[in-house]
Amino acid sequence: MATAEILSIGTELLLGHVLDTNSQFLAQELAGLGINCFFRSTVGDNKVRIRTAVNTALQRSDILITTGGLGPTADDLTTECLAEIFNVPLDFDQSVLDQIESFFKAAGQSMPASNRKQALRPQGAEMLPNPNGTAPGIIWRLGEILLKNQGLLPAPKFILTFPGVPSELEAMWTETARPFLQKTFGRQTIWSCRLKHYGIGESALAQKYAHLLDLANPTVAPYAGYGECRLTVTGSAENETAAKAIAKPVIDEILQTSGALCYGFDDDTLESVLGKLLIAQHKTLSVAESCTGGLVSKRLTDIAGSSEYIKLNVVTYSNEAKADILAIPEEVLLNHGAVSSECAEAMAKGILNRASTDISLSITGIAGPGGGNIEKPVGLVYIGLATADQYKSIELRLPSHLSRDTIRQRSASAAINAVRLFLLEDCN
Amino acid sequence: MATAEILSIGTELLLGHVLDTNSQFLAQELAGLGINCFFRSTVGDNKVRIRTAVNTALQRSDILITTGGLGPTADDLTTECLAEIFNVPLDFDQSVLDQIESFFKAAGQSMPASNRKQALRPQGAEMLPNPNGTAPGIIWRLGEILLKNQGLLPAPKFILTFPGVPSELEAMWTETARPFLQKTFGRQTIWSCRLKHYGIGESALAQKYAHLLDLANPTVAPYAGYGECRLTVTGSAENETAAKAIAKPVIDEILQTSGALCYGFDDDTLESVLGKLLIAQHKTLSVAESCTGGLVSKRLTDIAGSSEYIKLNVVTYSNEAKADILAIPEEVLLNHGAVSSECAEAMAKGILNRASTDISLSITGIAGPGGGNIEKPVGLVYIGLATADQYKSIELRLPSHLSRDTIRQRSASAAINAVRLFLLEDCN
Repeated sequence: MATAEILSIGTELLLGHVLDTNSQFLAQELAGLGINCFFRSTVGDNKVRIRTAVNTALQRSDILITTGGLGPTADDLTTECLAEIFNVPLDFDQSVLDQIESFFKAAGQSMPASNRKQALRPQGAEMLPNPNGTAPGIIWRLGEILLKNQGLLPAPKFILTFPGVPSELEAMWTETARPFLQKTFGRQTIWSCRLKHYGIGESALAQKYAHLLDLANPTVAPYAGYGECRLTVTGSAENETAAKAIAKPVIDEILQTSGALCYGFDDDTLESVLGKLLIAQHKTLSVAESCTGGLVSKRLTDIAGSSEYIKLNVVTYSNEAKADILAIPEEVLLNHGAVSSECAEAMAKGILNRASTDISLSITGIAGPGGGNIEKPVGLVYIGLATADQYKSIELRLPSHLSRDTIRQRSASAAINAVRLFLLEDCN
Repeated sequence: MATAEILSIGTELLLGHVLDTNSQFLAQELAGLGINCFFRSTVGDNKVRIRTAVNTALQRSDILITTGGLGPTADDLTTECLAEIFNVPLDFDQSVLDQIESFFKAAGQSMPASNRKQALRPQGAEMLPNPNGTAPGIIWRLGEILLKNQGLLPAPKFILTFPGVPSELEAMWTETARPFLQKTFGRQTIWSCRLKHYGIGESALAQKYAHLLDLANPTVAPYAGYGECRLTVTGSAENETAAKAIAKPVIDEILQTSGALCYGFDDDTLESVLGKLLIAQHKTLSVAESCTGGLVSKRLTDIAGSSEYIKLNVVTYSNEAKADILAIPEEVLLNHGAVSSECAEAMAKGILNRASTDISLSITGIAGPGGGNIEKPVGLVYIGLATADQYKSIELRLPSHLSRDTIRQRSASAAINAVRLFLLEDCN
């Protein structure tokens, strides 16, 4: 199996001025081609460090993919560095210069002299055309390579260079580099599926599926982050159909065992899955929020087409608004307070009537950092779910030291998941 | 000047499942401390490659910062790898385990046995506490180090480990790691101030302040990302007072020139600045949203203490809800449609009455990807702002190819900024 590595070149990356999204794009693409990527690195616009990084990469990988350093200015060093490292002259390509000049002409500008260097490439390298910009890259097949301190490396090695601008890189990849790599190295195809879970932590999930985590093909890896928890199942075979077939029995086992804990696949979110359930069951939903301040509504309407099932949501932050819009009885607020299961129930029933929907959701709590006390600490959240003939409630007690943002996000997820589970039960 | 490098550990990163935002955060922070960062790398959850990467890093840098691999599962290898590399035993820390257990207890769960490994650390390393999660890191001062093939390295070297979850990493950095590095390596004190701008793009901002961008001390750097645009002014001197004094004249010049284009400093957001203005002017605000679906309300209530000025917000997604809650005249919806300046005006006036606030904001538009036509394309957004005796409106025409999320975020920012500018004018 071929191995590639990604070298991002640019001082702006090391200063944190720019977020390196190219490396993620390339990593995903390489995985899709079945090319192993074991290392990624970043160096600045510095010849010594670029040389070191290139040498190290070629010693351990078959393919080196660089991003950045192809621009017209003095700190764009990639092309000339590569020529120096392998001790070959730079060839000038008139057809590339013509393209760069026409690129400027089309924009009604004349080409600055500094762009001339973008028409240079190391002798022996092929051009990697850039349809969206002035900086073409190279595809360079290196035969016998003598690297300082590392002797003669097994041939062939490949170097592909890309500019740092993501839209240019992505077009060059898709049009030229990917087909080239597929043709040259494509043997195994990798197919991955992420099984998204809610209501179970990463370690509990890993424990539950400990017997799968050491499989070689498919592989199963647990991951947690950004309030989600998932298992990634990856199969590898000669083509996608075969790779899927290898992954399928394990996916089926996880779906069977996890049941409702697994809410979806890949890019599914709790709210996108809930949206599909609401549409399938022809039901509408309304939300009355207090502590989450609109976050539940925002997440529900992140989904294109959510106007099918969302008609009216309200953020009743003050007691007056709760009384006015949701007709919360005064005695509920007086005797139990706005953060109480009684208030959550009145809010859910109030918005159900007000919005005339099939289901309603309410959420009231203390998101902090202020506003808590011993009886009702920061992190205490009540969620209510009402239909014409049912009412369910949830009490969350999140750790008080969590940030306001985390408490709001977790409360919103719990609320959205509650509706999902309700609809799942309802249809069973 | 001390040098640091960042090693991100995680197969998820090499497969492109996760975008590495931690490296950018750490790079910015290191630059702010005046610590050079010449290399960043990424390896997977693999002992051999982690070992190689750690060895390489310690050979060329004084400080190694790792992210990831501190979780409870078998593929979280960072801590045990480090102990193996330097041939020291792992010590068990009961106080860390107590904290992890109480973290689970607070969430009403019992701790899985696998979390026990998070209470281990290499003998001689100090704990780097994690206030937001179960995975603490370490701060390890290494004396004489014998590395395979590299002989004895000049001491001391430092290793700091962080989990991969950004919110946990950032809290650990700010509370413990940054003060530690500042104390240990800070010779020159670096003081930075970010001047946040809205209503001007990065290149226009860079052009406006071109004469400042080549200064040596203070430095001025433009940056754009995540819908914000800013100039970072950084002064360097023997102490903070002197560093601030060096930066001050340039900051004053920018504030003078930018005027209301500069809305705040450092961690200020449009909504936090607006919150301060509302409190200072003893005014309340209510919002009626359509296309943003609760996002404006969510952002306004992200601010702790926002219940001082937010009483009631509504998301009137359907025409029925607009008519019922906001008393939008039927002829407005019939003749002009829900996405029209007339509807925005009726919504703003409707919520002003309904919520009895000093100022109201409305927003209606087409967030896409569907629902647009030639007359009213995706990206068309109307914003209304009403008080008892004034009404202002804004029409946005955002590019139709933008994502639903981007259109909603930009619209929300424009709406919040409109209220900010209104309050600024009002007090002049």
